[in-house]
Amino acid sequence: MPASYKPRIVVTMGDPCGVGPEILVKLFSARERWAEYSLLVIGEPLALERAARLLGSTLRIQRVLNPQKWEDSDQPGTISAYTPQPLTIDDLGYGSPSQAACRATIRYIEWAVSMATEGTADAVCTCPIHKGNLHRHGFDFPGHTEFLCDLTSAERAVMMLVGPRLRVSLVTIHEALERVPRLITAENLTDTIRITGESLVRDFGLRAPRIAVAALNPHAGEGGRFGREEVDIIEPTLKGLGFADWSVEGPFPADTLFFRAYQGEFDAVVAMYHDQGLVPIKLVHFHDAVNVTLGLPIIRTSVDHGTAYDLAGTGRAHPGSLEAAVRMATQMARHRFA
Amino acid sequence: MPASYKPRIVVTMGDPCGVGPEILVKLFSARERWAEYSLLVIGEPLALERAARLLGSTLRIQRVLNPQKWEDSDQPGTISAYTPQPLTIDDLGYGSPSQAACRATIRYIEWAVSMATEGTADAVCTCPIHKGNLHRHGFDFPGHTEFLCDLTSAERAVMMLVGPRLRVSLVTIHEALERVPRLITAENLTDTIRITGESLVRDFGLRAPRIAVAALNPHAGEGGRFGREEVDIIEPTLKGLGFADWSVEGPFPADTLFFRAYQGEFDAVVAMYHDQGLVPIKLVHFHDAVNVTLGLPIIRTSVDHGTAYDLAGTGRAHPGSLEAAVRMATQMARHRFA
Repeated sequence: MPASYKPRIVVTMGDPCGVGPEILVKLFSARERWAEYSLLVIGEPLALERAARLLGSTLRIQRVLNPQKWEDSDQPGTISAYTPQPLTIDDLGYGSPSQAACRATIRYIEWAVSMATEGTADAVCTCPIHKGNLHRHGFDFPGHTEFLCDLTSAERAVMMLVGPRLRVSLVTIHEALERVPRLITAENLTDTIRITGESLVRDFGLRAPRIAVAALNPHAGEGGRFGREEVDIIEPTLKGLGFADWSVEGPFPADTLFFRAYQGEFDAVVAMYHDQGLVPIKLVHFHDAVNVTLGLPIIRTSVDHGTAYDLAGTGRAHPGSLEAAVRMATQMARHRFA
Repeated sequence: MPASYKPRIVVTMGDPCGVGPEILVKLFSARERWAEYSLLVIGEPLALERAARLLGSTLRIQRVLNPQKWEDSDQPGTISAYTPQPLTIDDLGYGSPSQAACRATIRYIEWAVSMATEGTADAVCTCPIHKGNLHRHGFDFPGHTEFLCDLTSAERAVMMLVGPRLRVSLVTIHEALERVPRLITAENLTDTIRITGESLVRDFGLRAPRIAVAALNPHAGEGGRFGREEVDIIEPTLKGLGFADWSVEGPFPADTLFFRAYQGEFDAVVAMYHDQGLVPIKLVHFHDAVNVTLGLPIIRTSVDHGTAYDLAGTGRAHPGSLEAAVRMATQMARHRFA
């Protein structure tokens, strides 16, 4: 890759009344290799200043006025921040965002996405939002991912969790377990596998990804003895796939599959439902798993935790997930753009 | 505990044409502390002799004639074995048990259970059987566990997987995922929690067990947004429990619960379904998890793998799970009987 390529990452602050500002200050405080990538916060500078005082940080908050031309302001000792919608300190009560703060939270995301689609940023990394509070102020989406799909006109996004030794993408996400079996369709499976494989090639630098598909039922249903989805849907779908350079295998009994993937046998596991995929990744990568949204035209990574209102203002929030999310965004941008 | 107590463990050979005889010979070859517990194989001595030759072992196979009085024959350098139904070498083709061998496999289990119920053994440890082959010869049970329930007239057994840092018991086991939600009833939950807690006290030596109950749905259903089983069944059931000295908490979102249990916050997790419990335990305890059956009047542990016909006769089967299962049976017997 050309040595001159320098990924430009924008990080949304998320809810300015949660732990976002504090983990952002910790992120910049621990930042090394400033020259290898550029970083811009989209969020309220006042919230960053308050967090810096709270943490005894000497970082200077640099207000960016022209977000089309921001990379030069990203210098050691500073946190560059742009806000599309300034707030006052009265909007920023810990754990209780004002209506203006909720609207600003949404604007941060819109702005970051437009920078990535217009080409003034290479990747978007997001801090946590509080869905309950946003819903009270007209936000109509179940979460970040659906909002990002809408903003980028993507047909379908796939949630992937990435840790140092496991990558897991999900066919279904926030669904009652009772609804999961009927959502395992040939179309959903094929889309998830295709989007996973495309991203492994484009954003993770793999030439010939090895994808393992988990079974839905225990012991993969033992030939239909307990559950027919493997026989009726998953096996025929996998047989019908035509991804030339990829290896797509399964359905494998989930109980031993994640150990095999952890040992390096596969590059990614396609899991059928939320807990099937998240239980193993959070068990072995609790502090450093990153949530990556595949299938969007832009690169998007996210912290893997919430606003943690109970921790906001204490200085105790852990920046590990944000650090991993920024690192992942940088690596993905290098693979895609360098 | 009195220094004189010496647990008496009987180990069934399981299918004599699978890896059972080989892992038994490896178990005795690596055995230390012969004086701390007594060990008797219930199975075909010919199969053990063949496995010893295959493995180049110098262990002598000691045929026990009177299984009421067997402990004295358990001496260093020997494998004591009793068979209730002798076979010939023609019955013992690798991977192809004769009808007599299938019937003998069932008799080994019946015999071991009767020794434990009559008091000539303190615990039963079982090697793998091949359900398909046994079903062809009149064995009417889905597996070991159901057969043991029947033999001991137990009303209900609970499957628990135990590893060095996680204990997980299951409300449902070999069920299609689609059937799981309707099987999460107050009765099933209460029975599983009660049997788990009783065993933690009696067989694991805990005075005040801390039990965590996993949710069925992702994020524990988020207050009913995706799945109502937490609100309608699990929460009210847990509120209604009256186990004085135990702590029973939940339902917790499964994705973070197993990490918490791994860190030591709980003594056992009650999981709602097979893969929810087995994915995490096999990920972190692949080689040393033991399958324990709770709720029987006898102590029973089991290896956590199958007959592995493809490995039978190669000498390559790994005895780790059997070693862990015997060790666990010994520890449980000490807690219960010493």
